[in-house]
Amino acid sequence: MKKIAVFTSGGDSPGMNACVRATVRTAHYNNIEIMGIMRGFNGMIENEIIPLASRSVSNIIQRGGTILKTARSKGFLTPEGRKMAFTNVQSHGIEGLICIGGNGSFTGAKIFHEEFGIPCIGAPGTIDNDLYGTDLTIGFDTAINTAVDAIDKIRDTADSHDRVFFIEVMGRHAGFIALAAGIAGGAEGILVPESTDDWQKVLNMYTGNNQSKKAFSIIVVAEGEEHGGAFELVEKIKKLNPAFEARVTILGHIQRGGTPSAYDRVLASKLGNAAVEALLKGETNKMAGLINNKVMLTPFDDAINKTKKLNPDLLRLVDIFNT
Amino acid sequence: MKKIAVFTSGGDSPGMNACVRATVRTAHYNNIEIMGIMRGFNGMIENEIIPLASRSVSNIIQRGGTILKTARSKGFLTPEGRKMAFTNVQSHGIEGLICIGGNGSFTGAKIFHEEFGIPCIGAPGTIDNDLYGTDLTIGFDTAINTAVDAIDKIRDTADSHDRVFFIEVMGRHAGFIALAAGIAGGAEGILVPESTDDWQKVLNMYTGNNQSKKAFSIIVVAEGEEHGGAFELVEKIKKLNPAFEARVTILGHIQRGGTPSAYDRVLASKLGNAAVEALLKGETNKMAGLINNKVMLTPFDDAINKTKKLNPDLLRLVDIFNT
Amino acid sequence: MKKIAVFTSGGDSPGMNACVRATVRTAHYNNIEIMGIMRGFNGMIENEIIPLASRSVSNIIQRGGTILKTARSKGFLTPEGRKMAFTNVQSHGIEGLICIGGNGSFTGAKIFHEEFGIPCIGAPGTIDNDLYGTDLTIGFDTAINTAVDAIDKIRDTADSHDRVFFIEVMGRHAGFIALAAGIAGGAEGILVPESTDDWQKVLNMYTGNNQSKKAFSIIVVAEGEEHGGAFELVEKIKKLNPAFEARVTILGHIQRGGTPSAYDRVLASKLGNAAVEALLKGETNKMAGLINNKVMLTPFDDAINKTKKLNPDLLRLVDIFNT
Amino acid sequence: MKKIAVFTSGGDSPGMNACVRATVRTAHYNNIEIMGIMRGFNGMIENEIIPLASRSVSNIIQRGGTILKTARSKGFLTPEGRKMAFTNVQSHGIEGLICIGGNGSFTGAKIFHEEFGIPCIGAPGTIDNDLYGTDLTIGFDTAINTAVDAIDKIRDTADSHDRVFFIEVMGRHAGFIALAAGIAGGAEGILVPESTDDWQKVLNMYTGNNQSKKAFSIIVVAEGEEHGGAFELVEKIKKLNPAFEARVTILGHIQRGGTPSAYDRVLASKLGNAAVEALLKGETNKMAGLINNKVMLTPFDDAINKTKKLNPDLLRLVDIFNT
Repeated sequence: MKKIAVFTSGGDSPGMNACVRATVRTAHYNNIEIMGIMRGFNGMIENEIIPLASRSVSNIIQRGGTILKTARSKGFLTPEGRKMAFTNVQSHGIEGLICIGGNGSFTGAKIFHEEFGIPCIGAPGTIDNDLYGTDLTIGFDTAINTAVDAIDKIRDTADSHDRVFFIEVMGRHAGFIALAAGIAGGAEGILVPESTDDWQKVLNMYTGNNQSKKAFSIIVVAEGEEHGGAFELVEKIKKLNPAFEARVTILGHIQRGGTPSAYDRVLASKLGNAAVEALLKGETNKMAGLINNKVMLTPFDDAINKTKKLNPDLLRLVDIFNT
Repeated sequence: MKKIAVFTSGGDSPGMNACVRATVRTAHYNNIEIMGIMRGFNGMIENEIIPLASRSVSNIIQRGGTILKTARSKGFLTPEGRKMAFTNVQSHGIEGLICIGGNGSFTGAKIFHEEFGIPCIGAPGTIDNDLYGTDLTIGFDTAINTAVDAIDKIRDTADSHDRVFFIEVMGRHAGFIALAAGIAGGAEGILVPESTDDWQKVLNMYTGNNQSKKAFSIIVVAEGEEHGGAFELVEKIKKLNPAFEARVTILGHIQRGGTPSAYDRVLASKLGNAAVEALLKGETNKMAGLINNKVMLTPFDDAINKTKKLNPDLLRLVDIFNT
Repeated sequence: MKKIAVFTSGGDSPGMNACVRATVRTAHYNNIEIMGIMRGFNGMIENEIIPLASRSVSNIIQRGGTILKTARSKGFLTPEGRKMAFTNVQSHGIEGLICIGGNGSFTGAKIFHEEFGIPCIGAPGTIDNDLYGTDLTIGFDTAINTAVDAIDKIRDTADSHDRVFFIEVMGRHAGFIALAAGIAGGAEGILVPESTDDWQKVLNMYTGNNQSKKAFSIIVVAEGEEHGGAFELVEKIKKLNPAFEARVTILGHIQRGGTPSAYDRVLASKLGNAAVEALLKGETNKMAGLINNKVMLTPFDDAINKTKKLNPDLLRLVDIFNT
Repeated sequence: MKKIAVFTSGGDSPGMNACVRATVRTAHYNNIEIMGIMRGFNGMIENEIIPLASRSVSNIIQRGGTILKTARSKGFLTPEGRKMAFTNVQSHGIEGLICIGGNGSFTGAKIFHEEFGIPCIGAPGTIDNDLYGTDLTIGFDTAINTAVDAIDKIRDTADSHDRVFFIEVMGRHAGFIALAAGIAGGAEGILVPESTDDWQKVLNMYTGNNQSKKAFSIIVVAEGEEHGGAFELVEKIKKLNPAFEARVTILGHIQRGGTPSAYDRVLASKLGNAAVEALLKGETNKMAGLINNKVMLTPFDDAINKTKKLNPDLLRLVDIFNT
C-alpha cells in the first residue's frame, strides 16, 4: 500500500481532529502518502480530495469539529454515486480508506468494499457511545463533561430557588450520556431508553403519598426516552399532580462541539494510529476500538448490529445515592 | 446604625455570593452587625433570618447562585405580608437593608420604606443588564461568557456541517446579552427587541436574490425579539424560502448559573461594599451602580423606570463585520 | 456493623468529595451510621469526628478539595498517637473505616488494623495515578485535563512567537500525568522517569546536526524526571547548544484542585460505593479500584508495593506523531 | 487611502485575533485592501506580507495567540532595518499601518512615521493593562480570568490542607493583574509595585504578636513587586518567623494564552474597527482605546509616557475584606 485516504462522516464529535492528526502522522511515519476526503462520502463523489502533509495537521489536536468537514450523503446511497466515488478514489491512486464516524458511515464503507474492493478501517467518532466494539467512542467523554458543566450551572439556580429541573441530553437510542452525566451531575433521577422502571421512580418522587421532600432536584432525561422528552414528561407529571412545577432545559447541540477532553484526545490518537496500522497490515471492514484498555479490531458487521449494554452498576447507583 | 441585614431577591445571578460576602465583610469592618434574610422577601415574612459572621462568607466568592437563596414573593405584594415582614425585621433590631436583585425587588424595597421607614440600598444582581444606573449588572459578564462558550461549541458543528444555527439567549425585554454575545461569538446576525431593521437584514441573508453565499452562519436571537423566538423566526423564513434549513438551540437556564467571571466578582465586591457604606451614611432608596468606572448611587425610581439604551456602536459593528 | 467512618488523607485530589458523598449515601442506604473524621489521621488523634447525615453531602459532588480536609500526620507514626486514635474511634462506636488516599494512608490504615483490629477499605484518591490495583486513581483525569488546558494556552504563545517551551507537570515517581498530558497536548517530546531513551531524543531535537526544523515545540517533563526538572534540563541543553532558547513553566499546585471531571466523579462514585459495600461484607485491608472497567479489590500490600507500569503503547505514539 | 496593513507586535495577548479580524472586516467594508505583516516589524523587514481576504479571518475570533504571529525585532532598532521595512511596505503600495501591541511597538511605529511618513494607528494588545489611554487593554480580562481560575484551584488545596499559598502573577511594572485577580480570587493579601505599605500588612499577618488566626490564606504577588517575587518574599518571612510555611506557585505563561473572554473579544472588535476608521480619516500616531465606555484616540506619546494609575478603591477593598 502506497497511498491511503481519511475522511470524517456522520455527526461531528470532539476528538475527530485529533484522530485525523493521528492517521496523518502514522501514515507519514510509515512512509505512506495520505489524502483527506472532504465532507465524508460527498467529497468522494465530488472529488474534493486533498493531500495531507504532516504539517497540515499541526495545532488541530485541541479543536472541536473536523477540519475535513462532515456530512450525511444521499448520493452515496445510490449505485451511481458510489461508482463516481470509486472512480475518483481510484484516480488518486488511493488504495485504502480510514473512516472516522458511526453506524451509517461504516455501513457505507462496507458496501463500498463489497462493490469495489477498497479496504476500509473505521474509528468510532460519535458522542453517543452507542457502538459495539469499543468501551467508549471518540467524543463521548467531552460530551458528558459539557453536559455535566451545564448541570452544575443549572444546579446553582435549582438550589437557589428550590426548583425542579428536567434536563434533556442527547442520546436518541441509548442512555449512555444521560446515565454518565446524571451520575456525575448528582441528579436525583435519570431516565434512559434502556430502563423500564426509571419512569415509575421519578413519578413516585413527584406524585402520590410518598413524594420527595427534597427542596430541589435535577432529573436528567435522554432524548430517546420511551415516555417522551423532557417537555412531555413534565406535562405527564402535571396531569397527575397539578401543583407540580418544573423547568425544562434541552442542552442540544452544545454537546457536540468544544475542545476535546484529554481523554478523547488520547483515545482518538490511539485509535487513529491503530486504524492506519491495521489497514497497512491488510485488515479491512473492521473498527478499531478500545476494549478493557486494549486496542481491538471488531468487524463492521458486529459494530453495526450488536448492541452495547448500559452498565447496570451505574443504574443501581442512582437509587442508592438518592434515598 | 448598629445592625443591618442583606438579602438576594428575584432571579439568581452569578456574583450574588461575592456581593453578599462584600456586604458582610464591610459591615464587620465598620463594627456593624449583619444578618442574612433567606429567600428574599419570603424569608422576611417567615422570619428566616440568620446572623452572618465574617467567616460565614469564606470560600463563597467563586460560587454561582446565592447562599441566601432567592424567590419571588407573592406574600410581600399584600399589606399583611409586609406588616409581618416589618414585625420580624424589627424584632431582630435590624435598622437597614441591603437588597441584591433587580427591578421587582427594588420596587418592593421602596414600598417597604414608604410604609415602615426602613432604609434600603440596592445592588443590581441580574444577568439581563436591563437596569438604569449601572453600566453593567452583577452576573451579566458571566452570562455572556457562558453564551459565548456555547456559541463557540455550536460553531464547531456549524462549520463542520456547513449549517445555519439560530441560538436563542436570555433577555425578555432587552438585547444586551444577545448583542454582546453575538459580537463576541462572531455571529452573522443578531436579533434584539430594540432594533427594527435587524430582522429584515437576516431575512435578506436567507431569502430573495441576494442570499448570502456563506457556507455556515450563526444568528443570535434575544428571547424577547418582537418577531418571535428562534423557533418562530426559522419557521417564518421557511415560509418564504422552503429550501431553508436551520437548527435551533435555546440556551436557557445555563446562562443563569456558573462560577462568576473575574469581572463580576470585582463588580460585586465594589457594589456590595458601596451599598453598605451608603446605608451607613444615611442614604436610602438608592441603587449602587458602576457608571464610567465610578461607583454611583441612583434613586430606585430612576433605576426602575428609566430605560438603559443598547450601545448603538455595537449594533453598527454587526453590519460592518458581516459584509 | 452499625457504624463506620470515612476520612481523606494525604494530598487532596479532585473527586474526593464525590467519593465521600458516595460512602455517606451508601451507608445510609444500608441503614448504617457514618461519621466523618477531619484532617485524616490527625482528626482521629484529636477526636475531630462528626456525624454525616445524608444531606450533609448535598451539593459537594462538583467541588474540588475535600470537605473533610486532609493532612499528613506525624502523630500517627507513633504508637501513642495510634493508641489515642483507637481510643477515640472506639468511643464513637465506629466499627470500620473508609480511607480515601494514597500509599502512605493505606500503610497507616494497615498498621492500625494490625494493632487494633479495626477493618479498613481504601479508595485511591491521588492525582498521580501511581497506585497498583486500579487503572486510574480518583483525580488523575481532572489533573491531566488541567495540565492539557495549560498546555493549550501555552501553545498559543509558543506558536505566535515560534518558541520552545518546557512544561513541568506533577509526578514525583511516575510519568502518568506527563505521558497522558503530553499526548493529549500534542507535545513534541515527553520526559518521564520510567524511560531512559526519552532524554536522548529530546537532546537530538535541539543539538547536533539533525536538529528539528519545527518553528515551535512543547516538551512536557515529569517533575521526577531522572535527568532533572524542566529548569535543569534546559540548562543542560544550553551547555551543548549555547544558541538554544526555551521558556520554562512549572504548572505546580493548579493540578491538584478544581472541579472534578465527569470521569472522576463517576469513578469516585463507583469506588466510594464499592468500598462501603466491601466493608459491610467483612472485607478489610483492601483497596477498591477499577480494573478493565470492573470494580475489584486489591490487598493494601499489593496496592502499596507493586508497581503500575506506564502504557508502552503511549510512549511509542510520541515518536510516531513527531517524525 | 487604498491599501493598508495590520500587524501584531510584542508579547501576544488573547483577543489579538479578534482585533485582526475587526481591522480586516472594517477595511473590506470601506472598500480598502488590507494586508497582514507577519511577526511584527520582522515581517516588514523580511517582506513577509500577505493579502488578507475577508474570509481569511473567519473562525479566528475565539482563538488565543495571533495568526499573524509576533516577535520583538532587533533589526527594527537599526536605521538599515527600518529602511528595508519601508522599501517593502512601499513596494506593496501600503499607505497606512495598524499596529496591535504595546509600548515598544508604538515607539517603533512612531519613529517609523517620523522617518518615512507612514501613518499608523495602534490598538492596545497586552495582558498587562499598563497603557495610558485605555481603561483596559486587549487581553487583560482574559488574563485575570485565567489567574482567578488558577487561584480557585489552588484554594481547594489551601483550604483542604490549611496551608498558605503565595501565587505570583504577571505584571513587571504594574499591579493591575495582581490587584484584580487578588480581589476576584478572594486573596487575603495582594502585593503590587505601586503600593508601599502592602508588604508590611502581609508581614503582620505571619510575624509578630498579632498574627492572623486564619486556617489558610492566599497572597497574590505581582512579579514586579519591589520586595521581590513570591519565592523571595516567603524566604524573607521565614527569616522573621522560622515556623512559617508557605507554598509558592508562579502562574507564568498560561496567563498569556487561551480563548479570549467575551469582554476581550468585544473590546478587540471595537478597537480594531475604530483604528481602521481613524486611519482612513487621516489620523496618525494615536492609539485607539476605551475610556469610560467610549472609544477615544490618545497620542502615542501619551500612551507610552504617561502612567496609568491603579484604582485606589480596589486597594482599599483588600483591607476591608480581610479584617
